Amino acid sequence: MPLDRMLGLFETARACMPVVTGDAAPRSDLAGKIIANVFLENSTRTRCSFTAAAHRLGATTIDLLGGTSSASKGETLLDTCANVAAMGVDGLVIRCSDTCGPAAVAGALGLPVLNAGDGKHEHPTQGLLDAFTITEHLGRTDLAGLRVGICGDVATSRVARSNVFALTRLGADVTLMGPPTLAPDDMATLIDGLDMPGTVRVVHEFDPHLEQLNVLMVLRIQFERHGGGGVPDDYRLHWGLTADRAEHLPEDAIVMHPGPVNRGTELDDAVCDGPRSLILQQVTGGVAVRMASLLDCLGG
Amino acid sequence: MPLDRMLGLFETARACMPVVTGDAAPRSDLAGKIIANVFLENSTRTRCSFTAAAHRLGATTIDLLGGTSSASKGETLLDTCANVAAMGVDGLVIRCSDTCGPAAVAGALGLPVLNAGDGKHEHPTQGLLDAFTITEHLGRTDLAGLRVGICGDVATSRVARSNVFALTRLGADVTLMGPPTLAPDDMATLIDGLDMPGTVRVVHEFDPHLEQLNVLMVLRIQFERHGGGGVPDDYRLHWGLTADRAEHLPEDAIVMHPGPVNRGTELDDAVCDGPRSLILQQVTGGVAVRMASLLDCLGG
Amino acid sequence: MPLDRMLGLFETARACMPVVTGDAAPRSDLAGKIIANVFLENSTRTRCSFTAAAHRLGATTIDLLGGTSSASKGETLLDTCANVAAMGVDGLVIRCSDTCGPAAVAGALGLPVLNAGDGKHEHPTQGLLDAFTITEHLGRTDLAGLRVGICGDVATSRVARSNVFALTRLGADVTLMGPPTLAPDDMATLIDGLDMPGTVRVVHEFDPHLEQLNVLMVLRIQFERHGGGGVPDDYRLHWGLTADRAEHLPEDAIVMHPGPVNRGTELDDAVCDGPRSLILQQVTGGVAVRMASLLDCLGG
Repeated sequence: MPLDRMLGLFETARACMPVVTGDAAPRSDLAGKIIANVFLENSTRTRCSFTAAAHRLGATTIDLLGGTSSASKGETLLDTCANVAAMGVDGLVIRCSDTCGPAAVAGALGLPVLNAGDGKHEHPTQGLLDAFTITEHLGRTDLAGLRVGICGDVATSRVARSNVFALTRLGADVTLMGPPTLAPDDMATLIDGLDMPGTVRVVHEFDPHLEQLNVLMVLRIQFERHGGGGVPDDYRLHWGLTADRAEHLPEDAIVMHPGPVNRGTELDDAVCDGPRSLILQQVTGGVAVRMASLLDCLGG
Repeated sequence: MPLDRMLGLFETARACMPVVTGDAAPRSDLAGKIIANVFLENSTRTRCSFTAAAHRLGATTIDLLGGTSSASKGETLLDTCANVAAMGVDGLVIRCSDTCGPAAVAGALGLPVLNAGDGKHEHPTQGLLDAFTITEHLGRTDLAGLRVGICGDVATSRVARSNVFALTRLGADVTLMGPPTLAPDDMATLIDGLDMPGTVRVVHEFDPHLEQLNVLMVLRIQFERHGGGGVPDDYRLHWGLTADRAEHLPEDAIVMHPGPVNRGTELDDAVCDGPRSLILQQVTGGVAVRMASLLDCLGG
Repeated sequence: MPLDRMLGLFETARACMPVVTGDAAPRSDLAGKIIANVFLENSTRTRCSFTAAAHRLGATTIDLLGGTSSASKGETLLDTCANVAAMGVDGLVIRCSDTCGPAAVAGALGLPVLNAGDGKHEHPTQGLLDAFTITEHLGRTDLAGLRVGICGDVATSRVARSNVFALTRLGADVTLMGPPTLAPDDMATLIDGLDMPGTVRVVHEFDPHLEQLNVLMVLRIQFERHGGGGVPDDYRLHWGLTADRAEHLPEDAIVMHPGPVNRGTELDDAVCDGPRSLILQQVTGGVAVRMASLLDCLGG
């Protein structure tokens, strides 16, 4: 995403924040419009966030959820979406396991499509909301020199990928951290050729890097994606952000997590609920960023 | 359904089309009303269509879905619906496995009830939307002399039954086509005694009839209803509408399908996505017909 | 709940009744507000009732349902709710298996929370709606001297507990009735120390008490909670409210049931659908009481 568009989204999101928190009246930009949530993979959290964003803009929503959709009758994602589009809905929010599925649908149908997570590929609004949360916290959108660690289950994480793209675009230097099984070296090439002002590297140690980080984003261990393999039994010992370990972060460093948190595995309670944590701010900012994204795609 | 009422619904549906497609503002005829979708059998497509129709008329919806409803606690359809009705909802849309369940509910409760498919019996709004799509395509509502083939899994298809009733009412001559297991001969008696201007017959060959058809409606093989038996392994060879076979249709003949399509089984991609196909028009017309049906039952 | 607040809720509920039944226009007190239904245990009936109440007040709703929520990824109730709250929703309706879960969430989050049933503990709006239905039927809110029987699966019933609290607060004398396995003697101590004007006792016979009851509330046998044990095979013989047995109630006694009814087990058809039955009035009153509860927690 070009820098200008990202900063425009952030500006809209900032204007939407009082609406999200109930300090300003709901908007009616999308009154009378229908957004279809096509969630072929389960994600209550993201679906609710998009739904709240739609409602705050005056739109109504229709849910097509994985296990209960025609997809379970063998229909392709594109056929499912073509049908929903033919019902006259004004936009689609798609969560699916097909890499680039939402982009293919958008290309085929000529309808506004928002990617709510496609396989292990991208989760763009999550990347945007994380970057938005950081810029709001710091009070600046130029992240040159900011050192961001993304720790844990990096390989299967569309969140990590989307964060790398968003944060390096804004100038941050990203360190992907994890054991080789979870953070493969070739992820350092993620932004090769994209002309990003920031950088990305991969390391396989945790403790030595903590004191240099301004932001530490702890990823969820997605046990459901690993089927038992790949995640070390002593994960917390080596890679969990324990209360002790968090002591080694600089005093003003912040901790983030896309949720839902495996408390006591990748993150200790004391850190999750402590003063460094911006986890709930991420959630609130997420609705604002999704309002901005809906306005960007469907508004005006 | 009497001809006058059907033509009245089509006229209303035609007026609703620009609302469905977003070319006209949503209506507020049903503002403040609540429609309950009681779907004890799964049907994302039909439920979404009814929901979009309700939203376009200003109503809100509440979903009671099969696996999660009180019905799974052993409650009867009538008790479930009596309870929802007692909550003050303004209308019910019912999908169930009980033949005539929706009619029984309507009789017992004195509340507007729309049948969204009852067992193997009827699917009236599907019959209406298919007929509407044909009349809109042809630019006339008198279908006398029109030759419509309905091909495939006819026996278990409430769609086929409802189409026979709607199309013969408008004067069309319907040919039900399929192997004897899927298209039993006694379906030719479906409209006996109903004084329809059109006709219905059953044939067990496909190719010899293609060149006489103005409309070919291909039904979905409902594998989930057959449990493996009844559907020949070489179904596509003998009964699939392949690209080759479609060549034998008259040049201006149209192809329809109620969806979701089993691509490569009953319908080839080239036909499904080709110029003859009115499949997505059916979907769009479906929302308009359901708006008209809701207005007919609840409006004014 | 203090008597004053309860009577205030009843007064509001009475004013809401014409809105529920469609005899008055919907209200807009909660227009623009979002209510999240967090139902980690399944309850279509209660969820629909709260949703209808929200819609009748102009609010929109978002559903987080048990099997599909992040809770199934191991998240705690509090984390789930903290996240939904951070999305800016204006109130939570919570159904869960954790005793006092909703109270804990309310304490932690400082957001309006309505308890829609927590484990075997309480189901406050059910207690309120049952009491409301009785007071509306009798035309008085002082229930001193009224004899109410609650019969059947008392031990696991949050409905029974909430009814005891509501009814004794209004002055009624409650008799809990059931075999010792389902109605343990220590439930007679439920209101000890609460300074209720009414009384509660436990009996293990049914027939001898019938002729003294003004109200008989028949509970649902929750087979799903017993796993086969605890419910006698000859339950109907000894504890079902059969048509014969109902003959022994005083002429003006009323019969209630929180639903869904196991017809032919705890209640015979003739009684369920007979003139004594207030079962559907309970359902209608339930929406009004939930409107009043939402207004009490979120309104103005």
